[in-house]
Amino acid sequence: MRIDIITCLPKLLESPFSDSILMRAQKKGLVTIEVHDLRAYATDKHQRVDDYAYGGGAGMVLMVEPIANCIRSLQADRHYDEIIYMSPDGEPFVQRTANELSLKENIMILCGHYKGVDERIREKFITREISIGDYVLSGGELAAAVVTDAVVRLLPNVLSDETSALTDSFQDGLLAPPVYTRPAEFEGLKVPEILLSGHEQKIENWRFEQAQKRTRERRPDLLSD
Amino acid sequence: MRIDIITCLPKLLESPFSDSILMRAQKKGLVTIEVHDLRAYATDKHQRVDDYAYGGGAGMVLMVEPIANCIRSLQADRHYDEIIYMSPDGEPFVQRTANELSLKENIMILCGHYKGVDERIREKFITREISIGDYVLSGGELAAAVVTDAVVRLLPNVLSDETSALTDSFQDGLLAPPVYTRPAEFEGLKVPEILLSGHEQKIENWRFEQAQKRTRERRPDLLSD
Repeated sequence: MRIDIITCLPKLLESPFSDSILMRAQKKGLVTIEVHDLRAYATDKHQRVDDYAYGGGAGMVLMVEPIANCIRSLQADRHYDEIIYMSPDGEPFVQRTANELSLKENIMILCGHYKGVDERIREKFITREISIGDYVLSGGELAAAVVTDAVVRLLPNVLSDETSALTDSFQDGLLAPPVYTRPAEFEGLKVPEILLSGHEQKIENWRFEQAQKRTRERRPDLLSD
Repeated sequence: MRIDIITCLPKLLESPFSDSILMRAQKKGLVTIEVHDLRAYATDKHQRVDDYAYGGGAGMVLMVEPIANCIRSLQADRHYDEIIYMSPDGEPFVQRTANELSLKENIMILCGHYKGVDERIREKFITREISIGDYVLSGGELAAAVVTDAVVRLLPNVLSDETSALTDSFQDGLLAPPVYTRPAEFEGLKVPEILLSGHEQKIENWRFEQAQKRTRERRPDLLSD
């Protein structure tokens, strides 16, 4: 899989992919993640990529031309299954979206910044608009990193043990059960005895019950879907 | 405001705060963001911070002791209004949560990684559990960065023009209207004439109508809340 991220602030994305699971996935050749600096596609000598909004008001808008140039330059090299724009008014990103995107070959992710991108980019190029939640960020960079992380960890062989992703929250429509590790007692707080029992089947039942209980208590909406 | 982030992978958080709005907010002294490496609080000589889950199964669990040590060491220096754990089973993070947290003085954010943290940490220390959305990430680092970004940009004087945050999506319960910048025509696509008209009141009305229309079309659930 290949993910191309377009941003006017590539520095923000230097570290999130350079350690842990995402770094190893790239080193193993399971995914290629490229961050593209919008300024390299600017059309004026000052490498300007934003300008004031028509109609006035606070906040800058990312200009249509540098983005169009960047998208077309990438499209000249390969076909993209999706050109995604990260925006708070996009479709809510959920685990199902991550599962679905993990099956694509090439995706492009455009990060807005400031007030967003010129609407004409959305009309002309974007195939999908995605929001990671009902809140506003300084830009789409962290949102693009979130989507990339959620998708890449689902790719085959990225997690060292494949069952690891299958037991995550949401994959079975339930929140995950509580987890414990050593020591068995910490300042009077003990690990539930069942987990020390060695009875595999009983432990599995307990975990399922705990996952159901936690979902009922915290997110009953997930059970009624 | 002060935000302390606890993580076993501090490298992941090196760049998201080191450019743009978050960097400037720190330089201006409007916020202090400190990232703490959990390994510095490990109790064994190998600086181990994770271990196998009791009861078996895939995925490692962050140990209770290093986290307890780190939290207590921070608490020795100041009072924390909230000790937040980023987790997919936490309360959903929405703009209202960001507004609320932006009024606090000191907050601590604990990032899980792998399968999460030992449940006893959550019982004993955590005052609030927050999820940035219904999807699973490799760890809480990006989630902590998202919360930090969403909160810090609301602090007084962080955005250069204060009306900028007030016209964002969600602050008035509506998605933001489309935005445009130069050129007025791009490959046949024109900016709506009203935005070039100079009639301030008419432009404001148009934007409000567009925001309502977009919300009705894309997120009718926001209007019924």
